[in-house]
Amino acid sequence: MNVNATKDEVDNVLAHVRDRGFKPIELPGADRLAIGVLGSNPASIRDAIVDLPGVADAVPVSKPYKQVTREWQPRQTVVDVGGVRIGDGSFTVIAGPCAVEGLEQMTSTARAVARAGAAILRGGAFKPRTSPYAFRGLGADGLDHLDAARSATGLPVVTEVLTPGDVETVAQRADMLQVGTRNAQNFALLEAVGAATRPVLLKRGLSNTVEEWLLAAEYVVSHGNPGVVLCERGIRTFETATRNTLDLAAVPLVKSLSHLPVVVDPSHATGHRHLVPAMSLAALAAGADGLLVEVHPDPENAMSDGPQSLTFEMFDDLMARLRRLAESLDRRLATAPSQEKAANRG
Amino acid sequence: MNVNATKDEVDNVLAHVRDRGFKPIELPGADRLAIGVLGSNPASIRDAIVDLPGVADAVPVSKPYKQVTREWQPRQTVVDVGGVRIGDGSFTVIAGPCAVEGLEQMTSTARAVARAGAAILRGGAFKPRTSPYAFRGLGADGLDHLDAARSATGLPVVTEVLTPGDVETVAQRADMLQVGTRNAQNFALLEAVGAATRPVLLKRGLSNTVEEWLLAAEYVVSHGNPGVVLCERGIRTFETATRNTLDLAAVPLVKSLSHLPVVVDPSHATGHRHLVPAMSLAALAAGADGLLVEVHPDPENAMSDGPQSLTFEMFDDLMARLRRLAESLDRRLATAPSQEKAANRG
Amino acid sequence: MNVNATKDEVDNVLAHVRDRGFKPIELPGADRLAIGVLGSNPASIRDAIVDLPGVADAVPVSKPYKQVTREWQPRQTVVDVGGVRIGDGSFTVIAGPCAVEGLEQMTSTARAVARAGAAILRGGAFKPRTSPYAFRGLGADGLDHLDAARSATGLPVVTEVLTPGDVETVAQRADMLQVGTRNAQNFALLEAVGAATRPVLLKRGLSNTVEEWLLAAEYVVSHGNPGVVLCERGIRTFETATRNTLDLAAVPLVKSLSHLPVVVDPSHATGHRHLVPAMSLAALAAGADGLLVEVHPDPENAMSDGPQSLTFEMFDDLMARLRRLAESLDRRLATAPSQEKAANRG
Amino acid sequence: MNVNATKDEVDNVLAHVRDRGFKPIELPGADRLAIGVLGSNPASIRDAIVDLPGVADAVPVSKPYKQVTREWQPRQTVVDVGGVRIGDGSFTVIAGPCAVEGLEQMTSTARAVARAGAAILRGGAFKPRTSPYAFRGLGADGLDHLDAARSATGLPVVTEVLTPGDVETVAQRADMLQVGTRNAQNFALLEAVGAATRPVLLKRGLSNTVEEWLLAAEYVVSHGNPGVVLCERGIRTFETATRNTLDLAAVPLVKSLSHLPVVVDPSHATGHRHLVPAMSLAALAAGADGLLVEVHPDPENAMSDGPQSLTFEMFDDLMARLRRLAESLDRRLATAPSQEKAANRG
Repeated sequence: MNVNATKDEVDNVLAHVRDRGFKPIELPGADRLAIGVLGSNPASIRDAIVDLPGVADAVPVSKPYKQVTREWQPRQTVVDVGGVRIGDGSFTVIAGPCAVEGLEQMTSTARAVARAGAAILRGGAFKPRTSPYAFRGLGADGLDHLDAARSATGLPVVTEVLTPGDVETVAQRADMLQVGTRNAQNFALLEAVGAATRPVLLKRGLSNTVEEWLLAAEYVVSHGNPGVVLCERGIRTFETATRNTLDLAAVPLVKSLSHLPVVVDPSHATGHRHLVPAMSLAALAAGADGLLVEVHPDPENAMSDGPQSLTFEMFDDLMARLRRLAESLDRRLATAPSQEKAANRG
Repeated sequence: MNVNATKDEVDNVLAHVRDRGFKPIELPGADRLAIGVLGSNPASIRDAIVDLPGVADAVPVSKPYKQVTREWQPRQTVVDVGGVRIGDGSFTVIAGPCAVEGLEQMTSTARAVARAGAAILRGGAFKPRTSPYAFRGLGADGLDHLDAARSATGLPVVTEVLTPGDVETVAQRADMLQVGTRNAQNFALLEAVGAATRPVLLKRGLSNTVEEWLLAAEYVVSHGNPGVVLCERGIRTFETATRNTLDLAAVPLVKSLSHLPVVVDPSHATGHRHLVPAMSLAALAAGADGLLVEVHPDPENAMSDGPQSLTFEMFDDLMARLRRLAESLDRRLATAPSQEKAANRG
Repeated sequence: MNVNATKDEVDNVLAHVRDRGFKPIELPGADRLAIGVLGSNPASIRDAIVDLPGVADAVPVSKPYKQVTREWQPRQTVVDVGGVRIGDGSFTVIAGPCAVEGLEQMTSTARAVARAGAAILRGGAFKPRTSPYAFRGLGADGLDHLDAARSATGLPVVTEVLTPGDVETVAQRADMLQVGTRNAQNFALLEAVGAATRPVLLKRGLSNTVEEWLLAAEYVVSHGNPGVVLCERGIRTFETATRNTLDLAAVPLVKSLSHLPVVVDPSHATGHRHLVPAMSLAALAAGADGLLVEVHPDPENAMSDGPQSLTFEMFDDLMARLRRLAESLDRRLATAPSQEKAANRG
Repeated sequence: MNVNATKDEVDNVLAHVRDRGFKPIELPGADRLAIGVLGSNPASIRDAIVDLPGVADAVPVSKPYKQVTREWQPRQTVVDVGGVRIGDGSFTVIAGPCAVEGLEQMTSTARAVARAGAAILRGGAFKPRTSPYAFRGLGADGLDHLDAARSATGLPVVTEVLTPGDVETVAQRADMLQVGTRNAQNFALLEAVGAATRPVLLKRGLSNTVEEWLLAAEYVVSHGNPGVVLCERGIRTFETATRNTLDLAAVPLVKSLSHLPVVVDPSHATGHRHLVPAMSLAALAAGADGLLVEVHPDPENAMSDGPQSLTFEMFDDLMARLRRLAESLDRRLATAPSQEKAANRG
């Protein structure tokens, strides 16, 4: 429908669709309403509605996910995260520790990754853990430390939300909300971040097909939040030599199917820091829009995911290699807004 | 610790554990506190604490999950669901439609499965769906229809909860709370049902190992709810001829590791109604404590999961075959409390 | 085609098929020639050929495998293994050690499993091993020990073939040829056993779909050997708590698709002897035609697969439980021909 | 052992190993004998044997595969394929059709890929096919066409062997022998190519772990053939959007574990030509030693694997992108020996 279509115009279209024996679904988007039509002969319905008042266009979409397809929106989505743009052709490196462990750990890491050229800071304040007895994150204190790290470096921050009740609190403090792999089909949470005003980093579920992953994104977008960045982080297979199996072919596949940006998490995918640089370079070569990579000042003593975290030195070296590779691909690494701007914002 | 151990006694044990270089974890259970000790030489710590005041016993537990193991509690847990006991040696059949679609559908199905000998009624009022555009259940109206079906038949009911915010509402209306496969590692939800007073039917996650599944159960039990029934419902593998791959060997495996009852869902596991009877009989022969099976008055027109739902006739036939097989294994099918009792309760 | 169709009649049918724009494939079977027709409108071609001279019938087959389908042959295949019938409604237990280790081991095991009621003896003389440094079997000596064990007990024997060059030698000594899981798509070997005069025990490949498994059987049958028994032995999945994941639902599924008998190998599927009895009972309840189970006089010291081998005592107990369960299902355990007959045969 | 160690010296070492309660295994390599020692205290045995006559060195190897590890041989293996070196730091592109379909198809493709810069030609004369009714390759005629294509271009050729009986014939005609994914654990075939004088392209099995894959390579090397190139071609997982799941992280992993070269087959891994270029670039960036890529003059009408074959134009474009990317990584694309030399050789 047009951006300014009236309720009567919408109702008229719905009636026409029903009259022809099809089922209409209202698909509210970020800035206008779409009407999906389910049925097997899209050509016939197109002719019947395309010229009705208030109708902007009639687009056939062959997939179960609709608004995230390139059929629906051919133009690439660019997501703005606190002034950093993901999906604009640059390569955005998001780096930081798995878990926020303290103020000093967070700010020293933020400074190190900022200096090396990362554009966004990551760090978990609320941690989903397989065991109820494992370290679950610092919670609200962790959000404070992320704030401090942002003030110190100007890097926008992304952090995870675990439950619908957390979304509003976290959205007030973070620049981007992460939905983790174990919540990739937690539909109540997807709806909650769909109603939030912050962009969303949506990890692929451990055993989600590409179709299920895009349907998860459709949940967020169809609840009104167009700012979704997809994150491939490895799927579960029979192979145990790596923590998961990085499905890198999903990057060009998803980019052909969807207009949403796609980043790669080589840390969780491989589980071993010595494999992270090779997979980071491969992600860039495969056309990903960015990376999510774990960096820790002292990986041996990290409270979570130490074996897969890069040291500062390894991260410096990786950034230099990424920069050179990006150039040969006519791309550049995304940069964060200046520290001054960030300080003013605080 | 003893049931009536004082705070001083607990603190004293914690101090002793720390003094010896181990890390103590308080594990609050349903009726008493346990203290877990993490470290690599359990024998030495055992001697140091077993005779302290307030200590009931010191039990070595080799698994990452603790309270759900047979090492911790050798005795089989029996879970009471509205008067039906699961895990007492009988075979409990839980049956009903995937989704509550209306009053007539729900009560007719309840009467049919009750007549055939089912002990508990299932039906989803809140449905998790892969697509945001699919039927999501009738919500509160669905709970009303479940109430009506219980009143009509005396069958206790189990229904799914999707988010922590729903737990209290649903717990007031249903006899058992189901946590679905996509929420099997939604830790906030596991904690919420852990704090509820209703027993929990915990489905195995689509790609969860047995260890992860038992850790999910540990979340519920460690938050104070000992009434967990595990449900094997098929895992995701490369095979697409069936909807999932029923991992039936997980039944004797989990029963050897844990004291919790285990039931099998052959409907979601296979996805094809013609495979459900064979897998139901196999589940009984493998030692499962019961079944969760989908039955619908008109599967061809079901709003969800029609292809895997049994007709009333198929369910009648299955129950007769299960009854005969149970006898040969010196077991019997569990029965529901009488309709009168149920009516009084309403 | 009719059993006695002439070459001219065959050529005439081929020409008619080609004239209508379809592609004919000659499918030589055990006792007559079939002509497969590839194309998308089977009804039209049926009318054109069903009344031609030499044509027995025209049967539409919707699957990529043809001769193994029930569409092609609705009647259940019964495979005769040295006088033991598999697929006739009885439940055939094939038992013995993973590897033939010596004369004494083989004959003592044969006597123990015969006494307990097994119908066929298994034992590997040629062993496929993942490592080139592992025990590879006794080879020709192993065949001698199998001979001796058969003479001592009257049990027919099944043993594995690894390469086309072995088929003739092994076929002269064994009653049934086993094709192992790692050779399930070794098409040269499938063709070689397809040309042999002994029945074939065809294990499902580690990551084979049901369709690929039936196509492997089609290789054997289409090369002239109708005596194929399918063996489900677990597939490879992400779960490592068991050696493989027993896909028991494949039993009723394959039995609905194909007329070939299906047996289950709970030993390789689970990898743990304590899970073997439950899965054996489940296999019977699921409708399998038999079992392939590992039994060893001293599992702790077995040269291969000790952890999954039953002791004699466990096997005795299992057979008693299977016998009782079979009765309740109106089935009986298959029995071997008498020792006298076997001795005469030797 | 030293290259010129005598039999007495070998026997003396074997005796010393046995005397200390360990089990020695003779591991014949390409140019000298090694003696593996199985047991749990390698340090103690090392001291006992390292100074015995004829002993070159005592190297602890922690993996079940021995001779393929970097512990055994730290130096990278370089495999010579008809004058093209794989593993010397360059990036070797092997290209051609899935199946040899005819002389014209083969020579035109050879000329096209040679012109674009491929170093080795691929083409299957003997094709393993899941269905017995599918096109199985031209056999000996296919080998003739490969010969002609080599003469026309100077490109060495690699082609598949299916059974031990084919190895000698194919080895006389081809420069490299391919072992396909379905034969990755066909141990009789691995032994046969281990005894051949041509290098071997060893594809990873559909569901093989990295450990099993390296053990397959160990079969070849331990039978005397050091010229093994490993080929990652995708593993089987739950995801069906791609034909297989390319496990690109296996490249840096295997290169850290083993001294053997590793190439990537993006065609079979993805199954879709539009994903092949991105995965080819990613393979180079991940550190692979080369590519195996399918190219066909008319993919729409290919007899096998058309949907995943590149057109000539796509291949030209890919080679240009690979060349540029290689430069930025300080690598270069390998080149074939000149056409003149090849002509002289013919």
